[in-house]
Formats: sequence, C-alpha cells, structure tokens
Amino acid sequence: MRIALDAMGGDRAPSEIVAGAVEAVREHGREIVLVGRRPVIEEELARQGASDSRLSVVDALEVVSMDESPVASYRTKKDSSIAVGLRLLRDREVQGFVSAGNSGAIMTAALFILGRIEGIERPALATVFPTLLGKCLLIDVGANAECKPHYLAQFGLMGSVYMERVFGCQSPKVGLLSNGEEDSKGNQLVQEARPLLRGAPLRFVGNVEGKDIPFGLADVVVCDGFTGNVVLKLAEGIGEMFFQMLREELTRNVLSQAAAAVLRPSFRRIAKRLDYQEYGGAPLLGVNGVCSIAHGRSSAKAICNAIRVTIQAAEGGLVQAIAERAAELERVPKVKGG
Amino acid sequence: MRIALDAMGGDRAPSEIVAGAVEAVREHGREIVLVGRRPVIEEELARQGASDSRLSVVDALEVVSMDESPVASYRTKKDSSIAVGLRLLRDREVQGFVSAGNSGAIMTAALFILGRIEGIERPALATVFPTLLGKCLLIDVGANAECKPHYLAQFGLMGSVYMERVFGCQSPKVGLLSNGEEDSKGNQLVQEARPLLRGAPLRFVGNVEGKDIPFGLADVVVCDGFTGNVVLKLAEGIGEMFFQMLREELTRNVLSQAAAAVLRPSFRRIAKRLDYQEYGGAPLLGVNGVCSIAHGRSSAKAICNAIRVTIQAAEGGLVQAIAERAAELERVPKVKGG
Repeated sequence: MRIALDAMGGDRAPSEIVAGAVEAVREHGREIVLVGRRPVIEEELARQGASDSRLSVVDALEVVSMDESPVASYRTKKDSSIAVGLRLLRDREVQGFVSAGNSGAIMTAALFILGRIEGIERPALATVFPTLLGKCLLIDVGANAECKPHYLAQFGLMGSVYMERVFGCQSPKVGLLSNGEEDSKGNQLVQEARPLLRGAPLRFVGNVEGKDIPFGLADVVVCDGFTGNVVLKLAEGIGEMFFQMLREELTRNVLSQAAAAVLRPSFRRIAKRLDYQEYGGAPLLGVNGVCSIAHGRSSAKAICNAIRVTIQAAEGGLVQAIAERAAELERVPKVKGG
Repeated sequence: MRIALDAMGGDRAPSEIVAGAVEAVREHGREIVLVGRRPVIEEELARQGASDSRLSVVDALEVVSMDESPVASYRTKKDSSIAVGLRLLRDREVQGFVSAGNSGAIMTAALFILGRIEGIERPALATVFPTLLGKCLLIDVGANAECKPHYLAQFGLMGSVYMERVFGCQSPKVGLLSNGEEDSKGNQLVQEARPLLRGAPLRFVGNVEGKDIPFGLADVVVCDGFTGNVVLKLAEGIGEMFFQMLREELTRNVLSQAAAAVLRPSFRRIAKRLDYQEYGGAPLLGVNGVCSIAHGRSSAKAICNAIRVTIQAAEGGLVQAIAERAAELERVPKVKGG
C-alpha cells in the first residue's frame, strides 16, 4: 500500500505537509510518495531530520497555486504536483492520493486523469461533519453547484458506500437535506430527487433539516454542492464564533481565568470533537481512484489523518464497491414523478 | 400605536403568548389586541392577574394548528386568529401583527389579506442572525423555496430597509450568499442575481460565504428560501449541539462543576448573544403591513421582543419605505447577463 501526497499543496506547504507524511509513516506504517519539487522536499525532509525508507520523492516541476483557475491549471501545468500524483494513482503506482491544494484544480485534474466510475455521472466532494452521536457524511460540499435529481441519488449511494467501507457504519441512514421534514417540502431539485433516492439501493430515511445534521439523524446527508458548501462553511464559522465568544468571556477577569484553567481539558475535548482536522479531509467520490482533498489550512495532524482515511478507503475497496453499487442503481427501474 | 397578537398561535399558546403581551404593555407602553377565543384569553388574563387597560381582546372562533396545510387553512378557516388579526391590520385598526403560529398559514393569509407591496413580487421571511459584530439579517429563510434572480434583488432591498428602519443600521452592507467569494462562484441563480443586486439601490458587497455570516461581513445576507431555511435550522442545531457538549463536559466531576458554577454568568452571556428569542421573531417583508412571525417555541420573553421590533418597524414606516425603494428599483435599467 502506497499513498501519493502532494507536497506542494496547501497554505502551509511544504513544511506541514512533509511533517504530516513523517507522522503518517510512523503511525500507519505504509509508504508515502511525496510529489513535488524534489530539492524543496528533500531540503524539508533533511530539516525535519526524517530518514524513513518508507518516504520517497517523485519530482514534479510545477505548482498550482490556491487561487488558480482549475481548467487553465490543468491545461497549462501538465507537470504540476497534482497532475503527477494523480497519474501515479491512475498507473497503479500508488493506491491513493492526498492533496491540501487548490480543490477545484484537484477535482478537474482527477476527472480528466482518473475518469469517472461507470454509472456515476458527477464526482462529488464529501466531508465528515461532527454530530452529537459521532459523525455524518455531507455530500456534495462543492463539486457541483448545479445538480440534476439523479446526481443526488448517486451522491447518496457513494456516501453510503463510503460510510460502510471507511467507518464500518452498517447500513448507513441516508437523508435528503431539505427545508422541512414533510414530503411536501423542498425545492424542485429535492422534490424530484426524493423518489430516486427512495428507489436506490440504500437506506433512505427521507428529508432531513439543517438542525438534524448536528443531531446525527442521518449518517449520510445528501445535497447539491452549493447548499453543501454553504452548510460546511457556516458550520466552520459558527464553531469559530463560539470559541471566540468563549475566549472573550473566559479572559474577563482573574476568577474566570482560573475557572477556565480548570476546564481547559473539557474545552479541548469539545474542540477536538468539532475539529475538521480530526476527520481526515474530504474524499472526492466517483472518480476512478481513492482521492482525498484536505483543507487548505491543514496542519501536519490533518494531513496525517487524511492519509489514514485514504488508506482505509483504499484497503476497503471503495472504488470497486461504488462501481458495484452504481451498477445496481442502474438496474433499478426509473421512477417518474412523486 | 396598537399591535394585534395572535393569542392562539405557537406551541406554548395561550399562556406564554398572553404573558408576553402583559410584559410588552408594561415595557413598551403600547396597546395590544389579543386575538383568539375570548373565553380562553380572558381566563388566561385572569389567571395571570392582568388587568391593564391597554390589553384588549378581539374574538376569533377558529384556530389554525401548527401542522395544517397553509392554503387549506386559509380557505376553510376565515375566522381563525391569524385571519382576524391580519384583517385588523388591513383595516388599520392596528399597525402591526405578531403570531407564533403556523408560519406557512400566516404567510399565505398575509399574502391574500394584506396583498403585496407594489414592486415586490414575492414576500420573504427574514431572520436576525447573531454575529461576532452584532447581528445580520438573513433573507429569505423559507417563504420561497424556488426563486427567480430578481426576487433576490428585491429581498436585498427589503432587508436593507429593515436594517435601517428597525435597527438604525446606516447604509447596510448587503451580501449574496454563495459557495465562494469570487464572482465566478455560485449556482445559476446566484450568477444571475449578482448583476441585479449590483444595479439595485443598496450597498452591495458581492458574494459572501457561509462562514462570513457569523463573522458579520454583511448586515444583510440574501439567499433563496431553501438555502436560508437550511442555514437557519443548521445554526440552531449547531448552537444546541454546542451547549449539549458543554453540559456533558461541565458535569463530569465535582471540580468541573465548581469551575462551571464560577463561569455560569459567562455562559449565560454567550447563550443570550446566540439566543434567537432576543431578536424578536422573523419579519415577513413585502406584504402590505408590518407582520412578524415568532418562533413556534416562543416564550413570553420572545413574544415581548417580537412585539418590540414590530412596534419599531411600524413606527419606522417600514412598509412605506420598502414601497419607495421598490419604486426606485423599478426605475433602474435592467442589466442583462454578467
């Protein structure tokens, strides 16, 4: 099992990325191929005193910046660390690819280089969301701002397989994000997607509302990529707002500072439960290969976690399982209307 | 200044509603007309020992339940507390209407009874969202699951007028909720709405992301009612999740309980900043009359706050100001495309 890691992608590349790789080989014991500018990576490895034989480097001459146009970067930078890493995956040199780089560029390149799994029309980006009961997977969180109803059924199916294969969730409950629980609720997309999800080979629990996500009413929450992106970023913002308010309050005076010191382990545990870095990045599902996109601000810990879930997905046969389930979905007779 | 209050609407009606009215006449010194079943209301007033001459009752024989179909309830219950209260508003017997009842039924009845403000095609439900800097108004949060681009421009305009007239916000910053800040981002609706907002008589600041809402980057955040409803309920759910996690942690042992006791005032202040009940319900904007929908779970305090902002909106000339601004919007030459 070898995983390719884009050493040049992310706001804190290459230092945090390389540090994450060092941590990952130590913790997970698989080989990591660092992809990017060889001199930069080797210098960073030397600086960190890393000399593990399970760490290797594959040279990639170009770097895609965080704000570059996805399509233009794919066309003009054939030797970017993203493209080289994805070609290693396509050619089975590695079994998974992780990058904290420009997510649009990764999605575009993955689509062109790896191609789609048969039966999946649009790859989708999924992300793990902390809940009171554990976690749920939100899909799509940004790959497809505009969706057709049957994409949503495919998202539900891919999310379901992911929760089974990576987190061992038995028969995950799949909910459709809507503006009300009742079947009469939803915009046109949701109204049309509901019967398709109901007919799909997955455990559909109907509409879920925004508040049902943190309460853990579904293991997989399906939505279009526009709504999912808003949800993801809102949750991030609310979490930061909360901790900011807490910080302001807990530093008001000596007494509150003392009490806060006592409660520090408690606050740390809450922060850990809510921390996206714990959950290992966002899997890009539906492409022909195991590919994870880590947050642009990823620390070494976040990279290490992203590598862990990528290994789990590859070892769990994620791509093959999605392909089999998509074939089942295609055999389901198409339901028209409600 | 008289405000009609639906005494029968909400999960905690009539007791909390009547208690809210009693509190409101004491605090805000205006007259409140309690609308609903006279015997029930009078009994409740007697039970609460309320005998303020500024409290009166208007009889309404029927009650719309929380899960009734909006259109059916409007057609079959012409004498519901909602319909009677809205007719008082239409006939200028009162200057505002507040209900914690079935929001769909209120919106439908308001549209039929009050009609729309000229130049506004779709009334929208707005809600105040707490931010690190204070508050912002999110519009639409559920009146229109499916929107056309020019509705969003009208929502921005109405939200802008509301923030000016009710909260004294000078030249409110209006943002368009999207899946990225760049102009290239957005679904088709957002792409088409952006130039219309840019050309509208308001201070448009471009796209905002989910995380920008709690950070207070805009005073008014415009979105379709499907997305807004998801955002609103997600925020509610995340807030509850957070306090639930906090409760679990702070009751772990005697030491943490003691520290938590010291910090109780701090936690209370945070809860108050995040409490929707402080912000006075959701204004229904675009109908010909000042109409506020309070949360179904509203307490007396929430009702009292909803009455306060309804008074502010009526005294601030909200409806007239929206009509004038909508006329300006209509004079703006229509921009096609980008």
